Amino acid sequence: MSLETVSENRCFGGTQGVYTHQSGATGTPMTFGLFLPEAAQHGRVPVLWYLSGLTCTHENAMTKAAAQGWCAEAGIAIVFPDTSPRGDDVADDDAYDLGKGAGFYVNATRDPWKPHFRMWDYVVDELPDLIGDNFAIDRDAMGITGHSMGGHGALTIAMTHPDRYASVSAFAPIANPSQSDWGRKQLSAYLGEDEDTWRAHDSSILMTERGYPGEVLIDQGSDDQFLDLLKPETLAQAMMARRQPGQLRMQPGYDHSYFFVQSFMADHVMWHAERLL
Amino acid sequence: MSLETVSENRCFGGTQGVYTHQSGATGTPMTFGLFLPEAAQHGRVPVLWYLSGLTCTHENAMTKAAAQGWCAEAGIAIVFPDTSPRGDDVADDDAYDLGKGAGFYVNATRDPWKPHFRMWDYVVDELPDLIGDNFAIDRDAMGITGHSMGGHGALTIAMTHPDRYASVSAFAPIANPSQSDWGRKQLSAYLGEDEDTWRAHDSSILMTERGYPGEVLIDQGSDDQFLDLLKPETLAQAMMARRQPGQLRMQPGYDHSYFFVQSFMADHVMWHAERLL
Repeated sequence: MSLETVSENRCFGGTQGVYTHQSGATGTPMTFGLFLPEAAQHGRVPVLWYLSGLTCTHENAMTKAAAQGWCAEAGIAIVFPDTSPRGDDVADDDAYDLGKGAGFYVNATRDPWKPHFRMWDYVVDELPDLIGDNFAIDRDAMGITGHSMGGHGALTIAMTHPDRYASVSAFAPIANPSQSDWGRKQLSAYLGEDEDTWRAHDSSILMTERGYPGEVLIDQGSDDQFLDLLKPETLAQAMMARRQPGQLRMQPGYDHSYFFVQSFMADHVMWHAERLL
Repeated sequence: MSLETVSENRCFGGTQGVYTHQSGATGTPMTFGLFLPEAAQHGRVPVLWYLSGLTCTHENAMTKAAAQGWCAEAGIAIVFPDTSPRGDDVADDDAYDLGKGAGFYVNATRDPWKPHFRMWDYVVDELPDLIGDNFAIDRDAMGITGHSMGGHGALTIAMTHPDRYASVSAFAPIANPSQSDWGRKQLSAYLGEDEDTWRAHDSSILMTERGYPGEVLIDQGSDDQFLDLLKPETLAQAMMARRQPGQLRMQPGYDHSYFFVQSFMADHVMWHAERLL
């Protein structure tokens, strides 16, 4: 798989790069951001996956989450994948929360989404291989986090593949999509009406059925304007019922914005670094 | 002067606000960002002015400079003014570097710019009064910094009013605009062809003639794509000739982007905090 460099900027002694490649998973060109700390010049470094939320591209967190400084200090890389396939021949919907920018980190099985909306395979399999082959990252030391729809992706991916992700956290995740307007519409569109197929993509259900072998860190703002859609209470109940090790922190006064995300980014990066280094 | 709240987001324990007001200086509505740290709930705090570069609004640095966390830690506020007047009745130019988004922090004396392009008065007089009247900031503990065109503004304002600004720094400032394509066009448009009127807005000239009574901190990336336009060598020569206390740091590998700015934001915030607290 060949990789094209869109841009590289020096940042906190390392490099913030943006790259494109033809994706086998989505059948489209895909763009991602990758920050490599200075430590990557001397050997392979652990890598943190940051999955973004609805409407985002690879760029949002890369420019607004203020993660690079902490990753530089910790000596870990951070990847910012896009949130869906892009291009004129990719299906879309007028709604902001379906289609482009709203891949929900699943492999679609229904038309018109099926041909390109394979973000699960892209994030879980293809992009780690690509990055591992082309950059000094350690495939055996990976953590995953994300915001909103990306928090949903991080939790479901980590609970499905705990062997591959040694650490997991989330910012204001969509925590119970099979029971939310942020989820029911998308999962029925991408996966069909059989709700059994949705269970693998609902972190509250996965928490009940599997949990995660390590500690889980979740931050949620108390003034999040989307609390009704995120449903942290369902995930909290599942975590407590399971005795899941970890922390679910309700942060007073914070909303759903990147001002919230950047406020706790240091905690999350250090959380992952402690478990990956 | 009445103030309207556009948004307020909790951020690092404080509040990132965006506000609009009718400006007497520019004769237009103006929008600015203001981060108040938690410390401002207990008394007036020092305030750092961050002036942005060409094409920017109040929003760029507010979302991309990663300053709030450091300001929260230091207990200082930071203001993000816009870079020009806005609105349908405000003169503009097709070029990105003249007119809207390119106020250059001067008071225009020439048409069509004269009626609204009074960013010097806006930043130096009006906005400090407005913020001092409405928020818990200490008008007697102000520092100023900025990037590119904003670095030019910060240096020229601080050297003109050292009594008002107890600290100054700049990121990749336009350092000698009277001898640069980033300057000659704008200063002739805004101030006219008499180059004597430009001298008050050229930090290399001000450095030669006045200097600054405190230490000056300037960061410049060695791989800045605009080095020919910024002319740091002229300012450096003037600083050395004057024996100006301070630091001019050439940062290897960094370019002109906000990845550069955020990489050294902690140093700048702490530089100001040490002098303001």
